[in-house]
Amino acid sequence: RRALEFHIPAYLALGVDPERTKFYFQSENRTVLKLMARFSGRVTMAEMMAIYGDLTPGKVVAALLDAADILHPQLKARMPGVIPVGIDQDPHIRLARDLVKRTKREFGFTPPASIYHKFTPSLDGSLKMSKSVPESCIEIPEEPKSVERKIWKALTGGRGSLAEQRALGGQPEKCVVFELFKQHLIEDDRELDRIYEECRSGARICGECKTYATELMVQLMEEFAAKMDEARSLVRELEFLQE
Amino acid sequence: RRALEFHIPAYLALGVDPERTKFYFQSENRTVLKLMARFSGRVTMAEMMAIYGDLTPGKVVAALLDAADILHPQLKARMPGVIPVGIDQDPHIRLARDLVKRTKREFGFTPPASIYHKFTPSLDGSLKMSKSVPESCIEIPEEPKSVERKIWKALTGGRGSLAEQRALGGQPEKCVVFELFKQHLIEDDRELDRIYEECRSGARICGECKTYATELMVQLMEEFAAKMDEARSLVRELEFLQE
Repeated sequence: RRALEFHIPAYLALGVDPERTKFYFQSENRTVLKLMARFSGRVTMAEMMAIYGDLTPGKVVAALLDAADILHPQLKARMPGVIPVGIDQDPHIRLARDLVKRTKREFGFTPPASIYHKFTPSLDGSLKMSKSVPESCIEIPEEPKSVERKIWKALTGGRGSLAEQRALGGQPEKCVVFELFKQHLIEDDRELDRIYEECRSGARICGECKTYATELMVQLMEEFAAKMDEARSLVRELEFLQE
Repeated sequence: RRALEFHIPAYLALGVDPERTKFYFQSENRTVLKLMARFSGRVTMAEMMAIYGDLTPGKVVAALLDAADILHPQLKARMPGVIPVGIDQDPHIRLARDLVKRTKREFGFTPPASIYHKFTPSLDGSLKMSKSVPESCIEIPEEPKSVERKIWKALTGGRGSLAEQRALGGQPEKCVVFELFKQHLIEDDRELDRIYEECRSGARICGECKTYATELMVQLMEEFAAKMDEARSLVRELEFLQE
């Protein structure tokens, strides 16, 4: 299964601590599935349409499953939940909070809170990287050749010509490559500041940044590949929550 | 739990053979719950509304759960299912048959068939006994005093006066007490024929039938109570399907 071969080792390789994490499969978790069925009786179609717009039976079930995913740990122990989501997933948090109110007597859940991930912008500068548009994103892992090609085509804050860039300086605020530095590739704030200033002053040109970003990204892929090997052997020892 | 204390022993007491039966709780059956979630993606809201009319999230989930209940045994072995339902439950069979077509490639299920129970009419002669209207039905078990009172008030095919009934004869086709004889209380067709003819000819009056029905019903309750004791000890040994 894809999750066991890739997703879970990838979480571990990217830093999730297996000692402090419980993994489970939604489809194997009877507690989640039962809670979903219970929740289905506590919300009206009009309310769900107000949250999600047009509904299909699949969306109804998926939304209730998400709420059950979010709240089921509280069946064991009352705990505040902080759910990391993209802003596009916020409706699920709202639904879960509504369901907490509806089932106050029955379950006494604490309303979950959420934190919102910043999207990594698409390489062409639009809202976010999307797997369904391969040219918009860099996958983890991805071949060095392909990483290089994609970064080289990415939107930057560069000007129309080298002369113009030297004179006016670049615009790092608009630059996807700088965004990659910020979000993923460079941890040191002083280094980021330096690159920012060099860009703004015209001392640094886009080719340098692209070359550097490619280097760092390829290095990240290599480290990731090594950690994945380690993580795959860890996964074999993981205990999955079975309920 | 009510099912373990009453419903399952009652099924056994009424004749279900535990050797040839698999019992499970829908809410504990992961296979059913997973199948429901899969089915949710294979039907549109418009289709469900065409079958069920106005929908709530609860109805959507319950209907898909019913279809999963009906079809999940086929995940183990392809088998034709014959599902006993009241005619009011027919929509679930239709939905299950539609889902068989939709998931042909994925699951290759055989469409289920159904048989339709005759309703036992309400004691006042209307469509069916209903637990939500206590005076409409005799419960199993029920106290002899209460059985007697209810049967005594039941709709019969009797005439306006004794003289009229002797002259014209009764109308067993309209008589709830005769229906109780037919459906539940008398197995011997010759005895039923005899009562029918005696009623039609005016030789038999309603009081006789009511007294007899009460006797038979109270006897049924006593036998049921004895078998329930036996069945309750059987339930402790039952293995419930856990998936």
